[in-house]
This record gives sequence, structure tokens and C-alpha cells, in this order.
Amino acid sequence: MVVGEVAEGVDLLVVGAGPGGYTAALRAAALGRSVLLVDRLGDSGIGGVCLQVGCIPSKALIEVADVAHRAGGLGDAGLTVRDVSVDLDRFQDWKAGKVGGLTGAVSGLLRRAGVEVAVGEFRFTRPGSGVLQSADDRPPRHLQYTDVLLATGSRPVELPGLPRDGLRVLDSTDALALRSLPRSMAVVGGGYIGLELGTAFAKLGSKVTVIEALDRLLPGVDAALLRPVRQRLDALGVDVLLGHRVEGFEDGVVTATAGSGVVRVPAEKMVVAIGRRPNTDGLGLNKIGITPDGAGLLAVGPDRMAAPHVAAIGDITAGPALAHKATAEGEVAAEALCGKPAAFDPAAVPAVVFSDPEIAVAGLSPEEARAQGMDVAVARLPLSASGRAATMGATEGFTQLVVDRSVDAVVGVHIVGPHASELIAEGVLAIEMAASPLDLLASIHPHPTLSEMTSDVARVLLHQPAGATVPAPAAS
Amino acid sequence: MVVGEVAEGVDLLVVGAGPGGYTAALRAAALGRSVLLVDRLGDSGIGGVCLQVGCIPSKALIEVADVAHRAGGLGDAGLTVRDVSVDLDRFQDWKAGKVGGLTGAVSGLLRRAGVEVAVGEFRFTRPGSGVLQSADDRPPRHLQYTDVLLATGSRPVELPGLPRDGLRVLDSTDALALRSLPRSMAVVGGGYIGLELGTAFAKLGSKVTVIEALDRLLPGVDAALLRPVRQRLDALGVDVLLGHRVEGFEDGVVTATAGSGVVRVPAEKMVVAIGRRPNTDGLGLNKIGITPDGAGLLAVGPDRMAAPHVAAIGDITAGPALAHKATAEGEVAAEALCGKPAAFDPAAVPAVVFSDPEIAVAGLSPEEARAQGMDVAVARLPLSASGRAATMGATEGFTQLVVDRSVDAVVGVHIVGPHASELIAEGVLAIEMAASPLDLLASIHPHPTLSEMTSDVARVLLHQPAGATVPAPAAS
Repeated sequence: MVVGEVAEGVDLLVVGAGPGGYTAALRAAALGRSVLLVDRLGDSGIGGVCLQVGCIPSKALIEVADVAHRAGGLGDAGLTVRDVSVDLDRFQDWKAGKVGGLTGAVSGLLRRAGVEVAVGEFRFTRPGSGVLQSADDRPPRHLQYTDVLLATGSRPVELPGLPRDGLRVLDSTDALALRSLPRSMAVVGGGYIGLELGTAFAKLGSKVTVIEALDRLLPGVDAALLRPVRQRLDALGVDVLLGHRVEGFEDGVVTATAGSGVVRVPAEKMVVAIGRRPNTDGLGLNKIGITPDGAGLLAVGPDRMAAPHVAAIGDITAGPALAHKATAEGEVAAEALCGKPAAFDPAAVPAVVFSDPEIAVAGLSPEEARAQGMDVAVARLPLSASGRAATMGATEGFTQLVVDRSVDAVVGVHIVGPHASELIAEGVLAIEMAASPLDLLASIHPHPTLSEMTSDVARVLLHQPAGATVPAPAAS
Repeated sequence: MVVGEVAEGVDLLVVGAGPGGYTAALRAAALGRSVLLVDRLGDSGIGGVCLQVGCIPSKALIEVADVAHRAGGLGDAGLTVRDVSVDLDRFQDWKAGKVGGLTGAVSGLLRRAGVEVAVGEFRFTRPGSGVLQSADDRPPRHLQYTDVLLATGSRPVELPGLPRDGLRVLDSTDALALRSLPRSMAVVGGGYIGLELGTAFAKLGSKVTVIEALDRLLPGVDAALLRPVRQRLDALGVDVLLGHRVEGFEDGVVTATAGSGVVRVPAEKMVVAIGRRPNTDGLGLNKIGITPDGAGLLAVGPDRMAAPHVAAIGDITAGPALAHKATAEGEVAAEALCGKPAAFDPAAVPAVVFSDPEIAVAGLSPEEARAQGMDVAVARLPLSASGRAATMGATEGFTQLVVDRSVDAVVGVHIVGPHASELIAEGVLAIEMAASPLDLLASIHPHPTLSEMTSDVARVLLHQPAGATVPAPAAS
């Protein structure tokens, strides 16, 4: 601290007001700590990327696109509509209202919990101290903290040589903020963000091309789960270029190469969704003796402590960059910082892709279970076995169960189909509780629902014929 | 047996091919029994009321009506459509295809399992014997069974003095088979069937009036769960007459009275959904010494045995007349008849109303838990706390958790909101596994989903501030 500066004492400093940060702030406040929650965007950053420009806005767009598309897709069932269209300008105002409402609600929770929220970027100056600098001309605040929790999240990676300009070259945030529908869109990156955006814009009427450098979409997701999604992308007229690298974007044409081949893709907008980078580079971590790894991630213990009095959670630590992981870690870190025994050790962190149909996975894949030396049994039931799916006009998808026979417990659940994102919750609980296939079968599922697939696939695994919702059992 | 008759020997006779009957037939066949499955409608009765004219057809209609209605209801979100309409004639053909596909699939399962399916009405002639009579001029078959399982289901109760004519006075089956949309419809009975039908036809454009003799809709369902549904009925323009008895239906006007008051309701069709009666009256049960109770129900033990060698399941036994209860009982009865130890003793039989929003309950209400002397804790979280709900434009609803503190276990889950029918599966598993609120909180729910409400309400109950999907916790 320079002579003349006055440092404020802070009991617990939380840096980053995303889902992990605000959850930790609330939990710590409930445990009696005096909490200062700082965010680059202050109050308007509450909920972080997830609430402001990520999960929530994308699901709003996907929802509206899906309703519009379904309305036009049930002609066989007698439903006719004319002139289905989505006014993105109006959508943005509606979405802003929803985001604002949720932001205000979290804001209210923080206020009632006595958590102070401040705007500014925080960087360490030495162990126990740092400075909070806001973008406006307010003087910096010098803070002396007892404990600090880092939850600064991540930001989109840019394409080398084709930086985001927010007009033609967009990141996912820009794409979700569009106020008019592009006639054509190249989505660079076939991960979950690219697929979700590409599917939504295709349903709204854009001509979408997905360009992925690897030789498959959704790396890390079981190829079988991807098949129904790939079929749907085809049906939606989405072109998919695998093994292609984007080289340029000029005069409304994206140039992509695969080996010596060159493809030219007409595109009004290019959306880059090739990954995210942890926000650890501007924190001055060297001042407190912490060095991120090559990917920018911080090493933490089971209690999420990166160093004495310093915790780190969410996208700046290893593991999937998912809001619900950050939230769960936030609870653990807050308890650890309050001197309670706490460890982040979930049996399953579910992952969801809001594609069409949705993909949701929890626990181990058959390969992962075998690699761990388990005595693996796998059963898979196609969605065509579901009466409820038939009533929705849905046919493509399946539910898969992975069981460790040596302990008779479910260790993996994988679902592709409508509402997989909701259905996986039962699978996660089954894994957490070490439920057996018989437990799933004995748990009565209401008829007719998609959730019956979970007990029906358990029945298949137990070598009984499939029941209530029926047919075509497939066990492997 | 009369001299000259030749009786066929049957190892296991299953009477009724509904979800309970065919599940029992499949299970018994898998356990090595030789099974004859008889149904009044033969192959075309497979799946019973549920598949042919009940659960599945109604969900198909509700789904199409809902998509049509939602398409017109997201104007604020920028979605505009013109001329939304549903051609019921076309819908019926589509629905018939779906029902036919599912029927064929169960048929295939039965064939592959070696179960013989025969058409006809069965009635007992003496213990161990009976006759199968089909409607056509085929000679009756005289059967001598080793064991028999009764799964004959139920039929709609008619309104005294206003019998079903299938043209103006309809039962639920007739209503679900309509090939043109009535301009106006009086639904007599405010139970779940009446509400589901009334809501669907209102969304399709009929002017619907629900007439209920009791002073509330959905008797047996917690009044709080009904509130969002009642609001929605109002918004859909559905008139609800409580405490009114239907006295007549002439010249397109239904007359209903409440005390000395008389109301005249214009209605092109009247749909009667005032309850169901078990199909036990034509079975000749007196010939085997079994007497149904006053309501027509058969008394059974935990193993579903009504007498030695005679099991009974589903709507002809006590408990809710629900397909998934019959299915679960079918498995138990099949095992019991095969000499295996088996008992029907689920911790929770879920019940679902496909209203708007949906209602789903599992386990005990707060009142029921208190009446059982439990140390009850209850928490309720409004749907406005859900980010996912916001993205769907859904606001009305809640999730409620009932916990027995003395054993720290969830004993009741009650949900009203979108997809409650699917979300309740996790609640049922939690109750079956005696999960604690902490188990629900520790089970990571993907964000953003409606399923997060389950962990968030557990957090409220554990006296922590609500997290990921946030606001306005309400504990009682």
C-alpha cells in the first residue's frame, strides 16, 4: 500500500457474482460472515455470464424457437398454422425483462442476507490485500481481506486471426443479443454451445452451417447419444462440416479448409464458439504466490482451497465449466472458509446439451465404467418404447443405464430425447444414493410419462420383458 | 360342465389385456408359465382403456392442444402465428396410428413371450373353470385353469337419467374420438379426467363449462396445488360451476341446479366424467365364492391374491385407478402366482393431473404426515424462483417438500408447474430410498432446469438461502 492510501477491512471477499460466487456469498452470510461481493459489472453482473448472457438467455431463445418450430411440425397431427415468425427485436425486450426479474430476485436475496455488492475489477497487490478498480472515474478501493473466494468465471476464446467485432464475427453473447434474424450463419465450433445456437437459429429460419475442426461433434459425448441429434440437424437443413478449419471471412463468405480442400460457406454472420478461457490472467495471482496451469486453471483441494485463505470455484478450476458445478462448489467453499468440514465430492455432475432432442448424461459411460474395472452391465431402451413419446410425435432417442454388478448399483445414466435435461435429475439421485436397478423398477413412475423409460430400462437390465410403456427392449 | 363340452386346460389365465394384465402375462411367461391372455376386444384390446381410449389418446390430444395454444401465447416473446387450428379429423387418424403402433409393439412382445391372446368375455362357472364367450358367433370356449389373474379394469359411470348416447351425451372415450370441434361443451365432473378434457378442448377453441357437484375441483388434491390450475382455467375462459347438479340436457342447453338456483349452460356436447365403476359384475364371481364390496371392489392380500389361485389387480381392487398402479401390481401378482415371495408395498404411488400447469404428487401431504404422528417439516418454493421457468414464460406453480424430521427423510413431494408429471419421478425415488433433504441438495441438478426446484426447496428446508435458481424462499 502506498502512503496515503486507506485500506478497508473485509471479512470475506468474493470476486465474481456468477452462480458460484453469489451462492457462496449467501451461504457464508448465513454462516455469520460479513461478505463483500465484487463484480466487474456490479449489480448488473449478478448471476454472471450464466444468467446475464449465457444459460438463461440461450434457453429463452431455444424455447421460443422450439415452440415456433413445433407449431409448424405437427401437421400430421392436424395442427396447422400460417406465418409463424419470431421478431427478435421483441424477443430481446422480453428476454431482458426475464433476466432483469431474476437478477433483481438474487439482488434482493443478497441484500436481505446483508451481502454488500460492489462494482469493479479486483486484483491482488500482496497476500491479504488488493485493489478494486471500476471502469468509471471512481477512485480505486484498497481492500484488506481475511478470506477471499475467487469465482471469476471464463470468457469465450477468439478465433486466431478473426477477432470478434460484434457485428460480423460474433461470440455466443453477441449471437444471443441479435435483434434481427441473419439469413445465414456459420457457427464455428461443434461443441454444446455451437449446437444449441445453431439449432435455435435454424429453427428460426437461418441457413446454418456448423464448422468443426475435429472429426466429430460434441467431443466427449458418447457417439450413440449424438446420432438422433445429427439426424435432426439434417432434417433442419443444418450443414455440418467436420474436420474443417476456418481460414477467413470476407464479403459474406467463410472459407474453411480440410487438408488441401477448400469450402466456401456463405454467411451473413459468423458465430465463434470454440471454447472458453478462465478469467485468471488479470487477477495479479503472482502477488499472492499462486500460478495458474497452462490452461489458466487454479489447483484446489477437495475443499476448494487454492492457498490458505484463498478459495477458487467454477470455471477457473478443473472440471466442466457448468453453472451447477460452480454453485455446488460455492456451497462447499463457503463452508470451508467458515471452518466447517466440507468437500466437493459428488458421485455425478450431470451435463446437458439443449440440442434437439436434448442430451443429458450423469455418471460413467460404459467405457469409463469398464476402465475403472467394474463388472459392467448396460441396458438401452429406445424411445419408441415410450407411449408418452408417441403422443408427442417423438421417436428418436433412448435411455441407457450402466450398472456395476459387483455392488448392484447404478453408476451411469444417459438420455437422449425430449426433456432429457429434466429427466436426468432422477438418474443423478439414483447414482448419489447408489440405487440398484431393482430400486428404479420398484419406484413407481407415473403413466404415461417419459420418466417411465428409467424403470423400463431397469426392467430390461433385470431381464424381464418391458412393461407399461413397452416394446423393443435392447440389452447389451 | 355340461355333458359333451370339452374343457381346455389353461396353466395361467389372465383376464383383461390392459397395462396390468399384459405386464402380468409377460412376467409370468418369463417365469416359465404357459399363459392365456383373454380380452373382451382381443388383440385390439391390448393395452386396455389406457392405451386404446384413455391415457395415451388423451395425452395426444393434450399435447397437440398445448402446442397450438402455446404458439399463440408467446406474443410477448416475439412469436407471432396466424390461423392456428387443429383439424380433429386428421388428428384422429394420426392418433390411431400412434395407438396402433404401440398396440402392435405390445402384441409383438406377447407373441415373442409365447403368450396366447384370445378374444372374449370370461365368466366363472365353478372354482377352476369358466367359459370364454366372444361377441361373434364362435362357440364358447370352456376353460379349466390352474391359476387365474383378474385385471378387468373399470368403465365410466353414467349420469342418472342422462345415459350416454355417444352423440350428445358423451363419455371420455367418445370425447377423445370426436372428429370435429364442438363450439361448446359442458364437462360434468371436476375430477382429473374432466379437467384434462376441459382444458384441452378450451385450448382448441371450444367454450367449456365444468360442472361439479362438490364444492371444489379435484377432491383429494391439496387445495394449494389447485390454485394455479384454477387461474389458468379462468384465463382460458373455462367457466366452473361448483356445487351444481346436472338435471337435464335438452335443445343444446344443460340445466344445473344448486339448491333452489337454476343455471342454464348452452352446450353442443355434454361430456360425463363423474367416476368409474370396476368391471366385476359380469365375472360370475359368486360361482367361486368371491363377493365384491359395495363399490364392486375385490379384497386382496399384499400379494394381490383374492382367493387361492385367484389374483386381482388394478381398478377392480382398492386404491387409485391408475395404469402405473395396475402395472406394478401385475408384476407382484405374477410373481405370487409363480410361488415367489412378493408384496405390493410401494412407499409412494404418484398421481398426476395433466392440467395446465400439471399437478403431480407423491407420498404424504403435510396433513397426512401430521396425522401419522410424524415430526413434520414443510418447505415450499414458488416457481418464480426458477430461471428455467422464466425462460418458458411460466410463473405460476411451486414445489413442496414434506419431511419427517425424526428420521430425516422425505415423505412427500408435491409439484404444480410445467412438466410436473416428469419431475415427480425424482420425488418418488427420493421417498422410496428414504432420501434426506441433504441428499436432495447434494445431488447436483443441471442448470438451468425445472428439476433444480427440488434441490432448491431442500435448501430452503435446511434453512439456507436459495441458490442457483434463486428467490423468494417460503418455508412453513
